[in-house]
Formats: sequence, C-alpha cells, structure tokens
Amino acid sequence: MFSISPSTRLRPSPFYEATLADGVCAMTTYNQMLMPTSYGHPEEEYWRIINGVSMWDVAVERQVQLMGPDAGRLAQILAPRDLSKCKIGQGKYVPLCNHNGVLINDPILLKLDEDRYWLSIADSNIWFWAEAIARERGLKVEVSEPDVSPLAVQGPKAETVVASIFGDWVRDLKYFWFRETEIDGIPVAVARSGWSKQGGFEIYLMDGTKGTALWNIVKEAGQPQGIGPGNPNWCERVESGLVSYGGDSDGQTNPFEVRMGKYVDLDLPDDTIGIEALRRIAAEGPKRHQLGVVLDNSEPVKAEFTWNDIDMDGMRIGDMTTCVWSYRMNKNIGFALVATSARPGDRVVVRRAAGAVEGTLCDLPFL
Amino acid sequence: MFSISPSTRLRPSPFYEATLADGVCAMTTYNQMLMPTSYGHPEEEYWRIINGVSMWDVAVERQVQLMGPDAGRLAQILAPRDLSKCKIGQGKYVPLCNHNGVLINDPILLKLDEDRYWLSIADSNIWFWAEAIARERGLKVEVSEPDVSPLAVQGPKAETVVASIFGDWVRDLKYFWFRETEIDGIPVAVARSGWSKQGGFEIYLMDGTKGTALWNIVKEAGQPQGIGPGNPNWCERVESGLVSYGGDSDGQTNPFEVRMGKYVDLDLPDDTIGIEALRRIAAEGPKRHQLGVVLDNSEPVKAEFTWNDIDMDGMRIGDMTTCVWSYRMNKNIGFALVATSARPGDRVVVRRAAGAVEGTLCDLPFL
Repeated sequence: MFSISPSTRLRPSPFYEATLADGVCAMTTYNQMLMPTSYGHPEEEYWRIINGVSMWDVAVERQVQLMGPDAGRLAQILAPRDLSKCKIGQGKYVPLCNHNGVLINDPILLKLDEDRYWLSIADSNIWFWAEAIARERGLKVEVSEPDVSPLAVQGPKAETVVASIFGDWVRDLKYFWFRETEIDGIPVAVARSGWSKQGGFEIYLMDGTKGTALWNIVKEAGQPQGIGPGNPNWCERVESGLVSYGGDSDGQTNPFEVRMGKYVDLDLPDDTIGIEALRRIAAEGPKRHQLGVVLDNSEPVKAEFTWNDIDMDGMRIGDMTTCVWSYRMNKNIGFALVATSARPGDRVVVRRAAGAVEGTLCDLPFL
Repeated sequence: MFSISPSTRLRPSPFYEATLADGVCAMTTYNQMLMPTSYGHPEEEYWRIINGVSMWDVAVERQVQLMGPDAGRLAQILAPRDLSKCKIGQGKYVPLCNHNGVLINDPILLKLDEDRYWLSIADSNIWFWAEAIARERGLKVEVSEPDVSPLAVQGPKAETVVASIFGDWVRDLKYFWFRETEIDGIPVAVARSGWSKQGGFEIYLMDGTKGTALWNIVKEAGQPQGIGPGNPNWCERVESGLVSYGGDSDGQTNPFEVRMGKYVDLDLPDDTIGIEALRRIAAEGPKRHQLGVVLDNSEPVKAEFTWNDIDMDGMRIGDMTTCVWSYRMNKNIGFALVATSARPGDRVVVRRAAGAVEGTLCDLPFL
C-alpha cells in the first residue's frame, strides 16, 4: 500500500536482517519498532500456524524491567491482578489500568526473581507509566528496557521444534511459565506463551547481537516440521478471540468490556492503581461488552485503519473494532464492542467504508 | 520499501482522504498514527518548502490537553522551563524530562486559557505520563486528547497563503503565538509555528470531520503561490539543525546534550519533575553534545533505521543519529551525538552499514 520511510525514530529488530533474508514484504510499527506482518503468502502463512509451525519476529514486545527491592511492590501497584502467589519462573497475563480503570496495556508479567520482573508489553509506553509511578511513590526500583527480544514459535508442531533445540524439559513448561537457559552461547528465556491459540513458545533473546544466529537455529531445527516465517496472525487471533490492545480497545475501554474481568481481583489493597474505579465499574456493570460478529457477505473484506459503526434497529450500538476473512469459517468475522443490551444472535448492520453489511452477533471465541 | 499493513491499532488522520487524493506514496507512523512522508517527488517537495509553500498533514502531533483549576500547576510540574510569564495565546517550546532529567518529549506548550493548556507533542506517550503525575499528586486537572489535528503550511510564501485565508492579522502573530478562529464554519487555531526554519503556520483543526474541507481551502488558497503537498522535511530540518525526539535522542539523552539547555530554567521550584537532576547535570557538565557532521563522500546516502558509530583516532566517540543528502550543500550531512571532547573541525569516521565514511564535525545549524 505505502512504503515505510526509514527513520532512526523507528528501530529495527535484532531479527531484522534474518526477516529480510526470508523475504518479509509487509510491516507494521509497534512500540516504535518495525514488526513483520507478511512474507507475501498470507493464506499459506495462516495454514502454517494452524497445521504446522511458524516463527515470528515479535521483538516489538519490549520488556519493561522492574528491578530492585520494591520491584514486586511496584508490580502489584501497577497490576490489578493478585500477584501474591506468582512464583519465580511464572508469568501472568495482566490488564494494566490507569487510575480511572481504563486499560492502558495488557502485558504478560514474568517474575524472574524476587526483585526482578518483566512486563512483556503490547503497543503502549509503559516505561513512562511505571517510571512515573515508581518515582512519585518513592519506591526503590529501577525501571529500564533490557536487551530482550522475543521470537515466537507457534503452532501444533512448535513443541517438537522447541524441544529439539532445548530438550524435552520444555514439554513440561506450564502455560506462561518460563526458564532461563542458553543455546550455542546465546542467553535466552524460553516461555510457553504466544499470541495464538495453536500452542507454542516465545524465546526471549537476551543478546541483541545474536538475532540472526537464533533465527537460524530455530529455522534449521524446524525444517523437519516444515517451519516457515510468519507473524502475529490477524485471522487466527480473531478466530481465537484474542484481543489486540489499541486495536480492539480505545481510550475509554475497561477490562470488563473486553473479557478481561477474570484477570481483575477487586479485593486488592487500595494502593493498586485503578482498583477503586474497577470496583465501581464492576458494581455498576460495564456499559459495553465484546462479542463476535459474523458478516453476511461472502467476499473477503479489506483491512481498514478505522473502526466501523454498528447499528441495530436503526440505532448505533457500538463499533466493529476489527474484521478479517476467516479461512476456516469462509466468512468475514470481527469483534464488536457494543452496548450490553446487544446479545448474541442479534442482527446488526456494520457501516464499512465500502458500504453497509448485515451480520449477526455471536459469542467469542469463534473457534 | 515495505507496505504498511492496515490495522485499527494505527489511526488515520482527518486529512487521510485528502492526502490519498493528492498522491501520498510513503508514510511513517508517529503517535500510533500514519504520517505522509512523500508524494513521490522528494527533491521537488524539498525545493517547494525552501522557495515556495508546502502543506503538510501533521495530525500526528497530537494534543495532550490539561484542563481544570490545576492545569497551569501541572504544566509547570511537567515542564522544566519557566512558564510563569506565558500569556493566553502564547506557545513555548519545552523539553519534557523524567525524574532523572532524561528527555521524554519536546512539545510546543500552548496556553489556551488560565485553566487549559495543550502539549502539542512529538512521538511519545505523554498522556500516560501527565495522567500518572496528575493523579499521583492529587491535582484537579483532566488530562485528555481533544479532537485537534494540525495542518502545517510552511515556506517563505506561507504567510501570504495563510493571510489570504484568515486575514492580515496572521502577519502580526509572533513566533509560537496563536489565535482561535474559524474558516467556513470550521473551528481552528492558527499558530505561527512549524518544524522548519523557512517560516510558516500550523492550523490546528478542531473538528476531525472537516479534514478534507480544510485541506481543500488551504490548497485552493495556495494555488497562486504554487502550493503543493509535502511533509516534515528531513533534509530541511537537518540543514536547519532541528532535533527529532526519538530520532536524535535515546533513553539517556538530557536536554543539554541536544542544544536545549536554553529552554531549561534551573531555578524552578523543586516540585518540577527532573529539575534536581537537571541542576546536577548542568553543574557537572553533560558527557555528550550534538554537533553536525559533513561526510566526504559525494553520493547521496540511503536513509537507515539505525544510528551509526562515529570513531575518532580509532576510538568510538558517539553516534551519527541521522543523515541526509543536502540539496543545498550537495553533501551528506548528519547529526553527531558525541563525547564533549570532540570539537567542530575534528575528523571522524562514520561506520555506515554500506561501509565506513570519513567526515568532519561542525557547528549547527548547517544553514
């Protein structure tokens, strides 16, 4: 569509050269870095994650490191989810909120040590946020961005590939747990994690000079399983009901509206940011909720940069926040952020730039 | 180079349709929005700003609005520059710093009223920062992102064009001052401002549904002066010595290192964020400073996503943070963020991906 103008304001990933060599042809930006989004064969890239194994440059998932005697305290102040039982080597999905209970990121929190945590973030600046809170509260903790860049290996054959590299112990890793190790002298942390429901791992590279080396290790190890390059797959993630912070949320969205209520613990102490607002929202009930929408039309829609109005009975009830062609359902499917009065089964009209389309609301996930 | 994948995580500008119609062909992202960077004729776009008048979609310069009884107090807490004499209708360039004196943005602050300010920001998330500080200090102020999108009109003929639209009063606007007005029912603020040294204005559109209408008003008014579409011009801004936050600064840069010391007032009260650190840095003297570098080679270099090491006498002394071909100097020129021991006139070696190039350090601006 457009070319991205090179600028030192945008940072390449440690895997940049490797992805160029493998033929990356479309990118997006995320946390002021470039992220590959296509190698030119979108459907092939999709089926690879569904049926096989795919490797993704997700270095854009930057780490916000909290280190020091108050690191755990700061983590709990930032996260409205109970972390008291989180063990070293364990990760947890946490909806970060501001003081009004509005979602500002949804990272995986990794506990590396009693005094060291990473927030493996979605696309918003949590360094500034964490730094502001830490300094304003006088906490003894350093907030930094360490040299850590995730490489995802996703799909039903991912475990075989990752086990062939690191050993069979990876098969015993529980979801979101991780272990620090190394491969050919390259320091990494291996986590069972990833932005798909097809299973897989994220290998956190801890030496940015070794991106090509790590990429090639994974690529070579995956040959018997037919590994190939891919990306955080927009189709698979919508089919699986995975939220994109910033894509499916706006500046007013709270966790309850986007199916994250189960990650909020309302009995946390009052010094947790947003907890009072979240208690109030929970008591009153959210005004919007997230459903799926299946469109009636049978031609794949084009991706757009904007949300689309959703109408029901001639009234606007909310927005379709994303829409993709589902290769498994042979339908256009999307997420609907709509008034809680709208229910699965309701018929709606989605106002796309290309024209209005009818559709039906449904529960999530689709598959 | 690459196409940018459409995603609802990235927002289009109110001028998006108009820029498409005018043939935009390259973009970058900035504050999670798309920003046009070329209409296909880079040299023509450059000379238009130097000799004529150019119009730029800079809606990506988002506003962080501070509103409420403590808005002025919050502004002064955030900005290490004395705002006590700032008048309604006046703007000021302010280096925002964190508690360690590290630069986190360099907005124009606009005082709209005693209880309403805008920070017209560069590319980093200052909503989170301002919101965190406001809430943690219990200030009575609302931090929001209003529906405001700047359109720049830059170049020596800009004043003629803007005066023909709004009237001759714009000729009396002092630098960074602004006035709220309207044109054909479209609410705007007109400021003498802009990211070039060729003179010009930024028209802050205050109704996002009127982007195409405003674009066309400016385009039509500019026909006699040969107006055409352009962008924050990388060549002109380097020639003129204008800093790009995030492009020419890193996570350790303080204002003194990048020629912003004159915008820091060290005798501000202690509750100004970063002021103690800035006093210490000023007393000790910064470790790096920003100079120009003129390369010896005579072929235009390609833009890159990375800084380049600078060596002097076989030792690394810092980085070239950006580099462009200067159409007026017929040389490759760049910014050098180097040890303060390095001085104008010193010979250096810049380690580009395409190979090492020799060059000479110089004072800024180039022109």
